[in-house]
Amino acid sequence: MSAHVHHVRIYYEDTDLSGVVYHANYLKYFERAREHLLGSAELVRLYDEDGIGFVVYKIAMTFRDGARLGDELEIRTTVRAGSEYRAIFDQSAWRPGASRPLVEATLDLVCVDPQNKLVPLPETVRARIAAAAPE
Amino acid sequence: MSAHVHHVRIYYEDTDLSGVVYHANYLKYFERAREHLLGSAELVRLYDEDGIGFVVYKIAMTFRDGARLGDELEIRTTVRAGSEYRAIFDQSAWRPGASRPLVEATLDLVCVDPQNKLVPLPETVRARIAAAAPE
Amino acid sequence: MSAHVHHVRIYYEDTDLSGVVYHANYLKYFERAREHLLGSAELVRLYDEDGIGFVVYKIAMTFRDGARLGDELEIRTTVRAGSEYRAIFDQSAWRPGASRPLVEATLDLVCVDPQNKLVPLPETVRARIAAAAPE
Amino acid sequence: MSAHVHHVRIYYEDTDLSGVVYHANYLKYFERAREHLLGSAELVRLYDEDGIGFVVYKIAMTFRDGARLGDELEIRTTVRAGSEYRAIFDQSAWRPGASRPLVEATLDLVCVDPQNKLVPLPETVRARIAAAAPE
Repeated sequence: MSAHVHHVRIYYEDTDLSGVVYHANYLKYFERAREHLLGSAELVRLYDEDGIGFVVYKIAMTFRDGARLGDELEIRTTVRAGSEYRAIFDQSAWRPGASRPLVEATLDLVCVDPQNKLVPLPETVRARIAAAAPE
Repeated sequence: MSAHVHHVRIYYEDTDLSGVVYHANYLKYFERAREHLLGSAELVRLYDEDGIGFVVYKIAMTFRDGARLGDELEIRTTVRAGSEYRAIFDQSAWRPGASRPLVEATLDLVCVDPQNKLVPLPETVRARIAAAAPE
Repeated sequence: MSAHVHHVRIYYEDTDLSGVVYHANYLKYFERAREHLLGSAELVRLYDEDGIGFVVYKIAMTFRDGARLGDELEIRTTVRAGSEYRAIFDQSAWRPGASRPLVEATLDLVCVDPQNKLVPLPETVRARIAAAAPE
Repeated sequence: MSAHVHHVRIYYEDTDLSGVVYHANYLKYFERAREHLLGSAELVRLYDEDGIGFVVYKIAMTFRDGARLGDELEIRTTVRAGSEYRAIFDQSAWRPGASRPLVEATLDLVCVDPQNKLVPLPETVRARIAAAAPE
């Protein structure tokens, strides 16, 4: 079973005065990884041409340890279709070689039309999810 | 039962190209509200003098709608002691007058020493939580 | 001569591991103050109805000292029309009671159409600038 | 004359509702590039062991066009010693293949001790600057 891997470098901007990464920033790293997995060109096309936004609906997240300046994190992502309407992403942030992640999260994403009404996941997104899903 | 209320104005910096607030930013608003509730002077004192950090351990979050530029959100917070080691914050973001929140979250926070080991919630934090807890 | 004053509270999110505010964030505080001065409703209307964006063109900025967690900064703003095309904002960040600012900046803003071509400052913006200009 | 080149990908987090990158974020990209050029390990060591912070003192910045979601920017950096106390970085953000930069800036950085007093640039920083300086 293979996860999609995206690398994130930790810079000054990511830290706070406690010396580790500000907790909200892991959501940015997870979102960057999802953009790479889904393709930002397709996300923009969906939004501009079809009026469909791909939005976060639910997050469950656990923090075990904090990343530090200069760390090169691995963001590991797997994705599955939770229903016709919902893509479920399991994502975690790892220091290379660590035995467990610093942070792990499950995020449910859905698609909405310009009136913020739920619409089924578009075919292109379903195809990308199917291609990315671990065997 | 009364919640702690903190007001947040939405600026350009808060939005992304979809026109609404970038999802991770709600964690910033919730954290600002917790700082006001607990007192940032006491958080700094705990860290500098006692070496104790107050960190987010778990987050469960649901997004229903997106805030927009110029919105003045109400962040409502209640807090309870989950155990000797854990403070549980129920937090939500509201447009004034709305019948349900845009975003709601439950966040578990714990205290750690400089070696990132769990320590019991300090007396000052427990007192602040008791004072802020709804009847 | 009176400046427009906007207050900014410094939270964890604003700091980095050096313990003071991350330098780029002062641009956020200055932008918040400009939104209050110009009115975010009018900025949105210009963009949505007239296709006119109000964008930063030049920045000159000097940093003397760093703000810290819990600080309540005063952002002081004066504005003048540099030409038919350019609004010049003098902005600075102060600790209350200080004899000199932590940070000061001069920012030139211009208006652009959807093709990113320069357009004259709209009448509503010119009126707001004239009203805000110090005597 | 060769500049140090660092690549930056533009994500949702970088944009605002105008559809392009929020202006303050270019300072983050320039800072990331400086960290790579100077070495974040050495910056941390200077701070932790010698109590020396490397801080931005002055910025002059011009914005010509806005980067968009999915752009892969080149951040080009050259550096020179302005004096015993000052390192001057010329930095710019380019779309690959463009004939002029989107944004360009000159930043003066200085070193300060824990009392925020100016100190000469440390030998390790001077060496790194000399090595990075264009011929």
